[in-house]
Amino acid sequence: MDKLEKYRQIVRDFLTEQVATEQGSAQVECQLIFDGEHDHYQLLDLGWDGLKRIYACYIHIDIKDEQVWIQRNMTEVDVAAELLEAGIARQDLILGLHPPYKRPYTGYGVIAS
Amino acid sequence: MDKLEKYRQIVRDFLTEQVATEQGSAQVECQLIFDGEHDHYQLLDLGWDGLKRIYACYIHIDIKDEQVWIQRNMTEVDVAAELLEAGIARQDLILGLHPPYKRPYTGYGVIAS
Repeated sequence: MDKLEKYRQIVRDFLTEQVATEQGSAQVECQLIFDGEHDHYQLLDLGWDGLKRIYACYIHIDIKDEQVWIQRNMTEVDVAAELLEAGIARQDLILGLHPPYKRPYTGYGVIAS
Repeated sequence: MDKLEKYRQIVRDFLTEQVATEQGSAQVECQLIFDGEHDHYQLLDLGWDGLKRIYACYIHIDIKDEQVWIQRNMTEVDVAAELLEAGIARQDLILGLHPPYKRPYTGYGVIAS
């Protein structure tokens, strides 16, 4: 399996595991969004809690140029550590949640030149 | 083309047109997310405006049981009217942004039984 396919599978497996830990309800749906065309991957909740609208993206991961970008993480899970453990190389993990100038100091990757 | 494929194409075309009207920037990316496996479709902006993180889903549309759900619309576009005009039947358009008890009064669809 080439690197891109391996990374896609790791991201899908990771998000699928996260859903399993969620407590859903009849009115709130936990969605996995896997866009294999543009390599965008998300976990989000949507629905209704009584008359209150719920719409929250918890995790968003992109793959660009064989690097894995963590674009959003509203959970307590250390997503980068989990993806590293699952087999994504440290230099291929980019913390999109840190502004570009900080990334060289994160211990994770920077944009491949 | 069967109904489901037709609806998928209409949703994709509609979101693609919306992107064309966006003014992007070097630091803010406008993403189209097309998940054809689970039928989730989104338009969102993400990136950085200087040191401010931008993460905003503007439009989210789902297709479930051959009905098209408008789950989020943070734009000024009347998404339901546009999708109706593009060929989605009125009873197949569900305004997920209204709580379930209101939907029979929206003039659009309710969940097919």
